Amino acid sequence: SVNPDLGSERQTASFSVEKLTALLDGGAEQTRIRRAVVEAIESDPEFSRENQYFQTQNERYEAAVRKAVHLQKKMHEMGWTENGPEYKYIYRALSGDVAFLLHRVFMRSISVLGSDKQIAKWIPLATQHKLIGSYAQTELGHGTYLQGLETTAVFDTATQEFILNTPKISAMKWWPGDMGRSATHTVVFAQLYVHGKCYGIHPFIVQIRSLQDHSLCPGIIAGDIGPKMNFEHIDNGYLLLKNVRIPRENMLSKFCEVRPDGTYVRQGSQKINYFTMTTLRISLISDEVLMPLMKACTIAIRYSVVRRQSKLKPGEQEAKILDYQTQQEKLLPQLAAAYAYHFINDYLQELFNRGYTEIQRKNFDMLPELHALSSGFKAVITQHCTAGVEICLRACGGHGYSLLSGLPSLYTKILASCIYEGENTILLLQTARFLIKCFMAASAGQPVPPSVTYLAAVKHGKCPAKNKLDFLSPDIYTEAYQHVAVRLTSSTAAKLQDLIQSGVKKHDAWNQCTVQLVQAAKAHCHYIAVKNFAETVEKLEAKAGIQKIMKHLCDLFALHGIFSNTGAFLHDGYISAAQMDMVTASYLDLLAVIRKDAVPLVDAFDFTDKSLNSALGSYDGQVYQRLYEWAQKSPTNQMSPAYERYLKPLLHNALSKL
Amino acid sequence: SVNPDLGSERQTASFSVEKLTALLDGGAEQTRIRRAVVEAIESDPEFSRENQYFQTQNERYEAAVRKAVHLQKKMHEMGWTENGPEYKYIYRALSGDVAFLLHRVFMRSISVLGSDKQIAKWIPLATQHKLIGSYAQTELGHGTYLQGLETTAVFDTATQEFILNTPKISAMKWWPGDMGRSATHTVVFAQLYVHGKCYGIHPFIVQIRSLQDHSLCPGIIAGDIGPKMNFEHIDNGYLLLKNVRIPRENMLSKFCEVRPDGTYVRQGSQKINYFTMTTLRISLISDEVLMPLMKACTIAIRYSVVRRQSKLKPGEQEAKILDYQTQQEKLLPQLAAAYAYHFINDYLQELFNRGYTEIQRKNFDMLPELHALSSGFKAVITQHCTAGVEICLRACGGHGYSLLSGLPSLYTKILASCIYEGENTILLLQTARFLIKCFMAASAGQPVPPSVTYLAAVKHGKCPAKNKLDFLSPDIYTEAYQHVAVRLTSSTAAKLQDLIQSGVKKHDAWNQCTVQLVQAAKAHCHYIAVKNFAETVEKLEAKAGIQKIMKHLCDLFALHGIFSNTGAFLHDGYISAAQMDMVTASYLDLLAVIRKDAVPLVDAFDFTDKSLNSALGSYDGQVYQRLYEWAQKSPTNQMSPAYERYLKPLLHNALSKL
Repeated sequence: SVNPDLGSERQTASFSVEKLTALLDGGAEQTRIRRAVVEAIESDPEFSRENQYFQTQNERYEAAVRKAVHLQKKMHEMGWTENGPEYKYIYRALSGDVAFLLHRVFMRSISVLGSDKQIAKWIPLATQHKLIGSYAQTELGHGTYLQGLETTAVFDTATQEFILNTPKISAMKWWPGDMGRSATHTVVFAQLYVHGKCYGIHPFIVQIRSLQDHSLCPGIIAGDIGPKMNFEHIDNGYLLLKNVRIPRENMLSKFCEVRPDGTYVRQGSQKINYFTMTTLRISLISDEVLMPLMKACTIAIRYSVVRRQSKLKPGEQEAKILDYQTQQEKLLPQLAAAYAYHFINDYLQELFNRGYTEIQRKNFDMLPELHALSSGFKAVITQHCTAGVEICLRACGGHGYSLLSGLPSLYTKILASCIYEGENTILLLQTARFLIKCFMAASAGQPVPPSVTYLAAVKHGKCPAKNKLDFLSPDIYTEAYQHVAVRLTSSTAAKLQDLIQSGVKKHDAWNQCTVQLVQAAKAHCHYIAVKNFAETVEKLEAKAGIQKIMKHLCDLFALHGIFSNTGAFLHDGYISAAQMDMVTASYLDLLAVIRKDAVPLVDAFDFTDKSLNSALGSYDGQVYQRLYEWAQKSPTNQMSPAYERYLKPLLHNALSKL
Repeated sequence: SVNPDLGSERQTASFSVEKLTALLDGGAEQTRIRRAVVEAIESDPEFSRENQYFQTQNERYEAAVRKAVHLQKKMHEMGWTENGPEYKYIYRALSGDVAFLLHRVFMRSISVLGSDKQIAKWIPLATQHKLIGSYAQTELGHGTYLQGLETTAVFDTATQEFILNTPKISAMKWWPGDMGRSATHTVVFAQLYVHGKCYGIHPFIVQIRSLQDHSLCPGIIAGDIGPKMNFEHIDNGYLLLKNVRIPRENMLSKFCEVRPDGTYVRQGSQKINYFTMTTLRISLISDEVLMPLMKACTIAIRYSVVRRQSKLKPGEQEAKILDYQTQQEKLLPQLAAAYAYHFINDYLQELFNRGYTEIQRKNFDMLPELHALSSGFKAVITQHCTAGVEICLRACGGHGYSLLSGLPSLYTKILASCIYEGENTILLLQTARFLIKCFMAASAGQPVPPSVTYLAAVKHGKCPAKNKLDFLSPDIYTEAYQHVAVRLTSSTAAKLQDLIQSGVKKHDAWNQCTVQLVQAAKAHCHYIAVKNFAETVEKLEAKAGIQKIMKHLCDLFALHGIFSNTGAFLHDGYISAAQMDMVTASYLDLLAVIRKDAVPLVDAFDFTDKSLNSALGSYDGQVYQRLYEWAQKSPTNQMSPAYERYLKPLLHNALSKL
């Protein structure tokens, strides 16, 4: 039975939840396929996550391996293939709680970096799981800066082998997933030396464990790097190489080859490599970043209409906490952000697909823009969504702090996304470098990519809004965002020029501008996110109330951004103080409007109770009952030796002994 | 041996680290005592935290109980007493990793709320650990709003007993520390009913477990609430009462008593109760909030001079990451905040002591101000420090995400401080209520408490700064903070008045202003923190370079606050756009200045390696070596059954079976 405080929220939805779900999925047929996959996975007890919050790191790892192996069987049974429409929903339905993700990266790196011969040899072995692959790039001492990797691979002409070594401790491979305990093979990135000359970083296939008994191969020291904030199910590992010899054929050689005599040959274009990083950054947004925020919103918003605390009006019943303006101001902007970034994800996917088509035609023109947008949005979205999940957690008070709420795990998991696949600050600076370049080009009248043409159109106008309702006009706020992005880019470009002209060396000047460059990159992405949301809303069908509620969310996303960052808009007077008061008024008004549809808006994300795995967020809102039931299963409710050992002696006569 | 990249940072300190440590401790003698306590605790293997990051919740609990029991012995051995100068350093030296903290709250609540007779009976029992106490206030359904607690205590005249019940699931006690597994007794807060009439919430001493065999007493259902984000060592518990009868004498009756015939008598003043909450909120700041931030700064800053990544200048060695402006901008403001809040803590302590003296003279005049300041600062400091620890964690990239860095635990621990002892938003609204009240009084020419007299002096001037150096003048920036605090308070008071005059009911009007009221309360606290830091710096001796470096930190704290919140200062033109550019310039300049002393500034916190318990933050900076050594000890490096069960069959022939 549904908690009536939650049930009543669904009675008054201003739109069709089912239609919105279909919109998010990309069509009703996609919704049907997704639900079928979720149903198949969740009804299979082998995939259960029931006691996950009580498990140790070892137990989580074992379960993830079990699930990965069982998944092979399941896919066969269900007729799901890697190219089928179901495939993309499997990982999501498992909530990522499965091993061998790096096995896929191993395979992809061979497909992209390997010669045809290498692909023909290794891919079938990997596909049939005759080996388990990993991907060993990051070292203890190097993450971001790949050129600085210290592992060495020296070519020995006599034996036609590469000799791999970890010359010092900072060169030890560190972090690779699936490598700590599972992998038999890995792709090692190392500095290639031939005849004493260094040719830079290259990838090598190295076997690290026996296929017979899984013991470490000669010269290999490997293990698990221990506990992390999350990802207990993944055996992130370390790897130390001591004169490990591999055949010449194990250097992945699509782009570079070492001939038997030691001649180094470079062939083909490596530009595609950038594209691989771009692909990765875009592909993680949906499952690794948006899903956690959507889940956190679902949990926190459902809880906030079930939880009653204090009185809004004396004499009345205690109020649902979502009726407090401060609670709305915490949660509803996160909900709006989840929608905004869902639509930006669509935008990036489309851009990416177009880019891919061009690249297949050997046209690499779109690469810089794609790289800039995927880097910037990876940083902005992971940062914003991580902050959003934390806000949801804190908005649930003490119960949010219990692992049983599901919120702590969502937070500790999404937090990693700010770090992996490019540290966010580094990525934003890459976007900024693109912006500065384009700004200079545009100022000089040269053509620039579509997403930055606006940089050429520097306007010194003022915001034309006359009353608070004007700020519900997408033209008004999109223009304001654009203005700020241009101002921050142009002023930082000017500072950079000034410094260089005053004699500061180029690299120092760049470093001295980086705090402001990061601001410019964020403003650029924020502008595009707002613009894209507004354009998406415009294209929606007006029926079933969908367009109307999406328009409210778009307004909220835009106005929350202004309200939280007023200085950027006030700085040069583009928005005046009086107008900023209108923004605030409109923003606060919107909270009350969207609050009415808050529960239907999270229902539309269509998470099952099993996928939320939250005592606070279930569809029926039976929060307290579930917390109690779950807590009783905790291993901390088993008998502890602490009583016999310490408490009993203390209580009986500990002090008399002193 | 110290990593030379770290060692070199210490050569160039502009001040005496030892003198700064003494300043932070409140004198060299205090430093001596603290170090002696730390030495005694850390050299005792019973208190070791060595394998903490590898332990399960059960193991952590058992260790905490063991330590708590051992601590009794240790104190006796060392001659430490609860009133001695060593006492306050014990908990810190243990990093809070000890059980029975609620036992102290149990004792304090009896001392404060109990009659002399009750104190005479229970305190000796508790002191001698003939029982283990807890404190059962929070329920599943109620935290913040104490009046809403649902547990009942019905007086039975016939038997002279109270009958305690948990009438429904939301009334179950939930969260009390030490209650899940350890406590034998607890103070239960319940709605008192006599002859069918409800007299509101009162405290009752209830035995929950047998003193003989620790089994649950009749009518008691209790256990552990399960895993949380941190506090694995604490057995936060649940408690369900079914017709539990306790003698009339067990109602704590300093202020209220039920006579044998059921007559309810209220006696004495309960104002002191507010003071108890104030005490608690102030007392937690130092150990629970500042220590984690100071530790996080120490870890992140030491790591940032050891970690080298990428090149600042082509052709040179890779740069220490602390030399990047963006890294400085992440870490150095957190360092400044740690100092700022250390000094505010001194300020609050002093205010508190004065208040206490007055209260003992039956003068309660200072209570509202004390309550407002302790509430506001509890919220502002916990929020700011929590964000600071998260920034430190993220600034260490992947290694910060490893539990072995110590940063994840610091974060998950400090996060709780935003929730316990008053949820932050609620607390800020209490401060805001005080501000609005005082603003109205001041506007009407009535006297107001010292900390808010500035509200009367509404000025409409402009900031007089003419160049970027002017913003290094404490008068200039303190005035700016004051201006913003007045503006936000007065404008929100005006909005509130307008709403009420336009016919909105008082409670609705308040709710519609809460987002802005929270801003006003934060601005008030921020102003006082800046002012107090500036005044503290002025009083410091000029010698040994201490005053100079503290002045830099004070400037940084103030300018970072403006830089991060430009809109508040730009809004009414108090600071112009041109002046804001000066703020930015001065702020960025300061980063480079303070960066030079960053390591000495964290060294002055004087944390031992054991207290940091971090593979990244140790005094010698041997980061990679330590990560590797520690990881090898992880239980995830023991043999896993996953190989025999899942991997071997898969690798040998899993797919051929399908």
